[in-house]
Amino acid sequence: MVTTTLPADSAGLVKREYFSFAAPPDELSLDCGRKLGPVTLAYEIYGELNPARDNAILILHALSGDAHAAGWHHPEDHRPGWWDFMIGHGRPFDLDKYCVICTNVIGGCQGSTGPSSIDPETGNPYALNFPMVTIADMVRAQMRLIDHLGINRLLCVTGGSMGGMQALQWSIAAPERVASAIPIATTCHQNAMQIGWDEVGRQAIYADADWCSGDYQRLGKKPARGLAAARMLAHITYLSEESMRRKFGRTLREKENYGYDFGIDFEVESYLRHQGEIFVDRFDANSYLYITKAIDYFDLARDYGSLEEAFKKVQARYLILSFTSDWLYPTSQSLELLHILQANKKAVTFRELNTWYGHDSFLLPNPEMMRIIADFLAEVHAAGARERP
Amino acid sequence: MVTTTLPADSAGLVKREYFSFAAPPDELSLDCGRKLGPVTLAYEIYGELNPARDNAILILHALSGDAHAAGWHHPEDHRPGWWDFMIGHGRPFDLDKYCVICTNVIGGCQGSTGPSSIDPETGNPYALNFPMVTIADMVRAQMRLIDHLGINRLLCVTGGSMGGMQALQWSIAAPERVASAIPIATTCHQNAMQIGWDEVGRQAIYADADWCSGDYQRLGKKPARGLAAARMLAHITYLSEESMRRKFGRTLREKENYGYDFGIDFEVESYLRHQGEIFVDRFDANSYLYITKAIDYFDLARDYGSLEEAFKKVQARYLILSFTSDWLYPTSQSLELLHILQANKKAVTFRELNTWYGHDSFLLPNPEMMRIIADFLAEVHAAGARERP
Repeated sequence: MVTTTLPADSAGLVKREYFSFAAPPDELSLDCGRKLGPVTLAYEIYGELNPARDNAILILHALSGDAHAAGWHHPEDHRPGWWDFMIGHGRPFDLDKYCVICTNVIGGCQGSTGPSSIDPETGNPYALNFPMVTIADMVRAQMRLIDHLGINRLLCVTGGSMGGMQALQWSIAAPERVASAIPIATTCHQNAMQIGWDEVGRQAIYADADWCSGDYQRLGKKPARGLAAARMLAHITYLSEESMRRKFGRTLREKENYGYDFGIDFEVESYLRHQGEIFVDRFDANSYLYITKAIDYFDLARDYGSLEEAFKKVQARYLILSFTSDWLYPTSQSLELLHILQANKKAVTFRELNTWYGHDSFLLPNPEMMRIIADFLAEVHAAGARERP
Repeated sequence: MVTTTLPADSAGLVKREYFSFAAPPDELSLDCGRKLGPVTLAYEIYGELNPARDNAILILHALSGDAHAAGWHHPEDHRPGWWDFMIGHGRPFDLDKYCVICTNVIGGCQGSTGPSSIDPETGNPYALNFPMVTIADMVRAQMRLIDHLGINRLLCVTGGSMGGMQALQWSIAAPERVASAIPIATTCHQNAMQIGWDEVGRQAIYADADWCSGDYQRLGKKPARGLAAARMLAHITYLSEESMRRKFGRTLREKENYGYDFGIDFEVESYLRHQGEIFVDRFDANSYLYITKAIDYFDLARDYGSLEEAFKKVQARYLILSFTSDWLYPTSQSLELLHILQANKKAVTFRELNTWYGHDSFLLPNPEMMRIIADFLAEVHAAGARERP
């Protein structure tokens, strides 16, 4: 008998579902020119579709995220989904009003088809035979899921970081299917420094002999140290100088004096090593390689000729959010997006939120962010109701 | 016959010299409680000591620097020493007036005793048996060299980044021996984010199987990929978003379309990989580990009880420089140093220079920096001449 009580306003007990499609010969055509199929998407749904099927919100996850955005898989779970504070009854993505869908990207390793999946042609994991996927490919696959769920038009597409890239891509690729978009802490194109961080992470993985040129899974190995180093690096870019100072400063880890060796001296070292270790348990190194490449390839101006052209036909209303302490995807990149939407005379609101958590701010409860998003959605929802025949 | 002509205002042809000391039983006592000896310091001298021996400037190098600060070892050298634009006849460290000394730190791998040196007790490279050294230990060793050169008081100690830490340490450890100090792009204590970057670099090295727990040299191996990844990471922290955008943007490397593979797509990837590769040729992985630890341990408040206490007895005049685009050692850290010196009523000038090169700004010619330093030195030199009996 389960005695744990889950918060009444949460999504409660949820489960991961799967949708498979694109079986040969109807494979999914990818930007790289190759085809992928069959494709499985892992996804979760919280709340109910209304009869008009116009209350669906699609949540897009970031690099290391998954479909489990809210609620608990098991009552004993250590913690709920990654955006649980945003999704629930009376929460910004209000399950009393909206139906919330979250799906793991292709290329990922949390239930959707990716490099760790079995290649039907060889019976072995795809590994580096997996085709390169782009943000646009991820969205192509998601459209098939949304079709399958019988949803013609999404009330909102939203996500932070790579999730924001997908939200932008959705609004451009299917203008008539997206009523609103909330891109958070994101950009229209990955810049040189962002590509640089990703490339170093990849190099740390390549440097691990257990990566075996990507073939570690078949060989029963795991590039744990390389992937952990990549994650540690990325993790710092998600924080800020201030958040690290406040959290760790120069506090020593369970000692009063320096160890004068290569063990752990500082709390911040212990924290980063721990972040690396737990990441290795839940994430696949090849997925890390593929997804960072998808992010690095993201460049709406290149894909559509120019940013003006990219956003010319969008119909969505936009709410753009950035954070003062986010130096990885700084406010300047959100402003670029704002300016292009304004130049194209699109409906757009921009807010920069004052936080000290860095890029990770979008993953942390923030009353202002929660209120702004709730208000924006209520407005979009009301406008939709007025338009409904 | 050499036909190459070196610039007449340069230090010209220079050579690396060596000073050995602290032979057992008179080893150098280190902060970690262990002793090191014999110790060799590689150093270079440019210009002439005046009869009063009071015109010597000690240049301290950063993490990956060496004793070769100016001039050419061979006329055919691809380029001169790392701070050549600062050191020469009529240059800021003016060889018509000053005698400039630069020495490789202990723990290093460019001629001074470090983990790749032979441990006299075993006949093998020290590797991880090398004792941990601190910034204060580096300065202790340098004092022996300055004694050996017959210099009682240095006109100036200066350096950027870790070089600035040594300059501060010199001014505190030997107040009567330092007339002035120019700490550039540095701090009184490494902060949590700075420690974090260093720790990830170390983890990338540990992750390379060819590191062999530090014993690679004896085993005829080299953790090239891990060290390269560490360098690539560090290199990004030395740049700025703006410098990377201006230099690389999203320019593709010798291709018009994405490769959709894990080869090189972007110029920035090519640049970073190249930086990693050339670093491996000139730097030792264990030295990288030891020197980053020395930097991480640097905390004047901890060493002296408080920053007030640390700077209480200093006699040097200070010129503190920082750069607007340096987010690794940001201006806020220089301001902290300024405020503590002002609170202690010490002679101090601070200038923040407007650059877009990031932390590396101190390594690049900058007319404003050059003028400010030249003027400061002239003043200190004139004051010294007035004081001379």
